[in-house]
Formats: sequence, C-alpha cells, structure tokens
Amino acid sequence: MNEMLLKEISLATWTPGIRRSELQEMLVIASRPGILSFALGLPAAELFPVAEFAEAITGVLANDAQALQYGPPFGPLKSHIVSLMAQRNVICREEEIFLTSGAQQGLNLLTRLLLDPGGQVLIEELAYTGLQQVIEPYHPEILTVSTNPKTGMDIEAVAAFLAAGARPAFIYTVSEGHNPMAVSLSASKRAALVKLARLYNVPVIEDDPYGFLCYEDEKVPPMKALSEQYVLYVGSFSKILAPGVRVGWIVAPENLMEKLAVLKEASDINTSTLSQRSVSAYLDGGYLPAHLKMLLLEYRARRDAMLGALRDHFPLGSKYVKPTGGVFIWVQLPETIETSRLLKVALEREQVAFIPGAAFAIGEVPPANHCMRLNFSNCSASLIEKGIARLGRVIKEMP
Amino acid sequence: MNEMLLKEISLATWTPGIRRSELQEMLVIASRPGILSFALGLPAAELFPVAEFAEAITGVLANDAQALQYGPPFGPLKSHIVSLMAQRNVICREEEIFLTSGAQQGLNLLTRLLLDPGGQVLIEELAYTGLQQVIEPYHPEILTVSTNPKTGMDIEAVAAFLAAGARPAFIYTVSEGHNPMAVSLSASKRAALVKLARLYNVPVIEDDPYGFLCYEDEKVPPMKALSEQYVLYVGSFSKILAPGVRVGWIVAPENLMEKLAVLKEASDINTSTLSQRSVSAYLDGGYLPAHLKMLLLEYRARRDAMLGALRDHFPLGSKYVKPTGGVFIWVQLPETIETSRLLKVALEREQVAFIPGAAFAIGEVPPANHCMRLNFSNCSASLIEKGIARLGRVIKEMP
Repeated sequence: MNEMLLKEISLATWTPGIRRSELQEMLVIASRPGILSFALGLPAAELFPVAEFAEAITGVLANDAQALQYGPPFGPLKSHIVSLMAQRNVICREEEIFLTSGAQQGLNLLTRLLLDPGGQVLIEELAYTGLQQVIEPYHPEILTVSTNPKTGMDIEAVAAFLAAGARPAFIYTVSEGHNPMAVSLSASKRAALVKLARLYNVPVIEDDPYGFLCYEDEKVPPMKALSEQYVLYVGSFSKILAPGVRVGWIVAPENLMEKLAVLKEASDINTSTLSQRSVSAYLDGGYLPAHLKMLLLEYRARRDAMLGALRDHFPLGSKYVKPTGGVFIWVQLPETIETSRLLKVALEREQVAFIPGAAFAIGEVPPANHCMRLNFSNCSASLIEKGIARLGRVIKEMP
Repeated sequence: MNEMLLKEISLATWTPGIRRSELQEMLVIASRPGILSFALGLPAAELFPVAEFAEAITGVLANDAQALQYGPPFGPLKSHIVSLMAQRNVICREEEIFLTSGAQQGLNLLTRLLLDPGGQVLIEELAYTGLQQVIEPYHPEILTVSTNPKTGMDIEAVAAFLAAGARPAFIYTVSEGHNPMAVSLSASKRAALVKLARLYNVPVIEDDPYGFLCYEDEKVPPMKALSEQYVLYVGSFSKILAPGVRVGWIVAPENLMEKLAVLKEASDINTSTLSQRSVSAYLDGGYLPAHLKMLLLEYRARRDAMLGALRDHFPLGSKYVKPTGGVFIWVQLPETIETSRLLKVALEREQVAFIPGAAFAIGEVPPANHCMRLNFSNCSASLIEKGIARLGRVIKEMP
C-alpha cells in the first residue's frame, strides 16, 4: 500500500492555527551569514563567561558521580537562587524555589497549573509571543489592556476588568525591561497591581528574565517582593549567564511545589542535572557579581549607542523611550510606515533584521503596524551604529 | 493584610487530581543512603563514559562560540541520529528528526499535537506512568488492552476497538523492553499493529528509550521501520549515553516538524545547545559503538544475575519472563501477596525498594496488586544478588 496516497493522520483540533512565529522565522533568517540582526533577544555570546563555566563543568564531571544521572532538583542551586532573589529584595526560602529548563518552561508549567481550556487570562495588547504560544492550545478568552511606554501596563484597565467581574486564571506581565515594549513597570503600578491581585484573589505571573539587567542605580524590586502568595515569579540564568544551559526558576508558594513537580516530570523528567550542577558550581566560584557588573556596563553602553544612532539616523517623528532595563528599545515610527513591509526591504537591501510590532499584537488591535522592537544586547556598539544607519536609510527611502 | 488568612489562588480544574507519582516518591526514597533500589529505570552511573563526554564538552566550549547561545536544532546531531536509526533498519532523513529534551518531552509534544481535551487514546492496562501524567490534563477517554508477558500488547483487542469504531488520537506502546512489563513486542505483532494503524489512519507512538538495549543477537526492528507515516518514533540518549544530558528525538513525517517546532518553542525554547553539541561531539569521536557493546555485556550480566537470584530466593509460584531487552524484569508473585504492602515492609526491614505493579495500572483494573517491576541496570550483580535475597526473605515472611 502506498502511504503517500493515504490521508494524513488527524491532529488536535486547535493545531491548524499553529504557525511558526515571526521570531522563529527570524531565528533562521538572522542566523544567515551577513545579516545584522536586532531581531531576537539574544545576549552577547562574546560576553559569556566561557572559561569560568568550562572550569565549573569540568569540575562537576570530574568530581560528581551523579552529574549525568537523573536526579531530584539540586538543593545548592536553589540556595544560590534564594541569595540572588534577596539581592532584589525578594525574601524567599528554598522550599519556594522550583527549578525549570529556562523561563519559558516556567511560563508553560504555570499556565498548565492555572488555566482551564476556555478560561480567561489578562495580558497586554502587545505581549511576549512565547506566552501567546503557551496559552494558545487552551483557546482562552484573552482580556487585554494597553501598555504605557513610560510606566508600563495600564493598571486602571486591569482594575476595571476585575471590578466588572472578570476573574482571569492569571494576569501576566514582564515587569522589568518589558518584552516587547522595553518599559519597566513603575513602582506605584507594581504596588497597585499586587493590591488588585490580593483583593480579587487572582495571581500575577511576573515574567522577569531581564530583572537583573537594570541600568539604573535605583532599582525597583520585583512585585514578588510585595506578595508571597499572589505573585508567581519566573526567573532565568539565560540573560545573566547563558541561554545554552537552559536553567531558570519559579518562586511560588510552597503549596504549589508538589503539583509543579508532577507537571515538570510529565514535561521532561528533570532539568539537566549537569546543567543544574554546573550553574551551581559556577555560582560557588563567586564569579557572578563581577560578571553581572561587566554585563551591565557593556549593555548600558550598547543601549546608549543605539539611542544615539536612533537620534542620528531615524526620521523626525520617531518615538522611543530610553529603557531603564532589559535588552530592547521599542520604536514608534511615523504612522505611515508599515514595519512588516519595512522588514522585507531592510533584509533585502541592507541585510538588517528587527521584529515588526505587529508580531506581538494579540489579534488585530491595537495597530502596532508602525512599531518595531530593536535588540541592543547582541551587537557591538559599532555594529549598532552601522545597522541603525542602514535601517534609517531604508526608512527614509520608503514610499 | 495577612496573606495567610486569605484563600488560596484558584488552579485549573483538573489539578486536584495531581499527585506525586509513586515513581517520584521512589526517586526520593531510593536516593536515601543505604537503600538498595530496584525501583527506578536508572542506568548505571558508574558506566557513563564520563572521560570521553568531558573531552567532548570541553572541546565544544573551547571551539564553538555558539555553544552557550540560543540556537536552532543542531544539524550534525540529526545526522548522527539518522545513522543510529539506520542501524535499526529505520531509514529516515534529517528532515524527519526532531530533537527534544529527552524522550519524555517527545511524548509530551506528540500528545499536545495529537490529542484534544476529552479525546480518545488507546494504551495498555499497565502503562508507563510518564505517559499517564502526560495525558491526564486532557481528561481523555482511555481505551485499554492487556499485555501478554511473552509477546506484548494484545493486538487483537486493538483491532476489535478499531473495528467497533474507536478512533483514538494515538495508540501508545513501548515496543522494546516494555515499561513496566519488560516484554518486547513480537515481530508479527509489530507488523499487525502497523497494518491496523494504516488501515484506520490512527498513528502509533512507539516509545523506544530501551531500543538500543536488546540482548539478543537477532534484533527485531522498531515499528518505525514499517511505516514512515503512521509510526511516530520516540528515542533517547538517556539509556545509551546519559540521562543528565537530556537529549532525545522524535522521528516523524516531515510535515509535522513545523508544528512540533512551535510546540517545542512554547515548552522550553530549545534543547540546551551545549547538550546538543556535546552529544554530537561525543558521537563524532566514534566512542558510541564500543560503549554500547560494553553496556550490552554488562546489563546482560546484570539481567542474568537477577534471574538467577529470583530463581534462588523468590517463592515457588513466582512468575517472570527473561527479558530480551530493556532494564526491567516484571515479576508476578503468588496472588496473596500485595506488593504495595510488601514494599513498605521491604523498605523498613531490608532497605530494598521496587515499584509495585499497581502503580502502573490505569484505573483499578486489572489487579496487578501481586506484581512488581524490578530494575536490573542500576545495581552491580553482587548487589542484585544481595537485594533479591533480602526481598525474597521479606516475601517469605509476609502473612
């Protein structure tokens, strides 16, 4: 029997909606040689602490007979995370730390824990596509609020939804270095959102992969510092150490840990024991504080280089806010310029990549068609200057 | 406001059913010092090729600037997997290989791809608990068939379900070294199951983590060798290299790859680039064939040691079949002996662990209450002799 003549196997009914995200396309395109990419949220590979991490991993393999075996979550790593969180004013215990294969898995597990098929979620109109992919199979009712480019999520709109009876499974936001809008949620809005979460018994998922990348001397603590019970915090080593290790964490109430453990086991048994132990050994070495200081200096310089280049090369009427944290700048171009079209031209003529704002929009509203997300962590200052100049040229040539 | 006085946040409606699996409990108990454990399917840590793998990973970190970055699936590793599959008579292309963070993630992604909430699945009455955990959130209608201890899944019962109109999202089985029943599906049953899959357009998930651990000279190819379209094959490096690397793979029709990529991205962005490249570098080194040969010799000896010890120490009326592959022996004790109760006594009096058969049962039927799953890969032959003698002693003392 010729299998090619047969019909295809049936997939779950929600799957026809699956499509490669623009970010996945970009990952492929941006990895082509010669492309200068501001598209992805990649950290700078040349800044990874390769030698120190290699030392750590070599030591673990030489001395720890269980490093390549299955194993329960590694306690010493949890202890390091408790210390890291304390530096950000979040006082928690090892029993509240759940280790994950990166922050994305944290979002996936928390969604599975909280959201029923057809349930409600409350997110921003422009939201991290990875979160959108996580909730899609649940066909949720998505309530959206806008994001102010200077202060973050519209908390009054959140309050209005809740006052009108909405009871979402969770409220989601990126509090520091918002993805894609690059804004950090103001201290007063953080407090207001936590107050609402408590009042209405609705948890907030605080997605904080960029939380340790704050370029200001005065740092606002995460919302998690304000509520042990109503904020489910998601953190990651991807941006402060390296994404290749795939280690992140959740800080959540202890009573959720057992359920998370079952969901995690069903997902991938356990996070690589070798990764867990190597990251822990790297932290044992005491390398992280100096590494973070260097990262902040370097990424701040890249941010400033991009801001300078935008000033020099982008047309009048372009709007952007200097981000206080994270790895992105969100640019609103004059409304006549459709950035999806612009991207095609920029790739063809100038080999420069970015993500068009529309890629982050929930549904069709609001039009972010004239917006773009630019990453500044992955290119040197000189490449940033060169790339933004090229992009500025394409923009000015657009009809 | 004292948060402790407030009610807990609401979880998804299916989550009250979440409980730690007996295997998770065992992972904790069996890792206590002094416990002699036949409970988990752990490979032998002392046989891991630590020096060669350390050499591979050190080389990758020294020479590959992208090893710690996010990245697309690593092509050279796919190429190695194509070669590995060819050794088992499965002829496939790199475009049909999907890299995962271990086999468990493969099961998770395929289930998400195929199963609707409330949909049907067809599995065995005694089934891998990790698969049960994966399907649980979907509240599926579970159709079950029995497993013959000598020939595997009851294919006639599968045929009867399908003929009666059942159209499960998938049929699931472990074809080599069944978990928990240790049987390898007979060649004729493999052919019959694939024929049914094709006839009724229902895919088979062939979970094959133990496929390379076949102790017979005459090896039966996986079902995947019989159908490109209707068999979704799940493989893993956990049992042939080390579980700590968390690298596995799916072999599936090329048209499913894009959808799997989106599901994977939503799960954990990508499998650790460092793991992918290190496993690939280890394979580049040509170490695997000799390593596998050594593993087969050693595990075969451990299997035989356990069979000998069972003969010497277990009561008359105990039944078990010599497994031709995998890492387990399935023992049926005389029906009066309830193995859940036995486990408690064995742990207390003799510090020996195993998994009671009931832990694998779907619902209450069939009673596997007098059965146990014993692992032989994780203990040396002398510890196996000692542990089975202790277990035999406890069994004989049971009222």
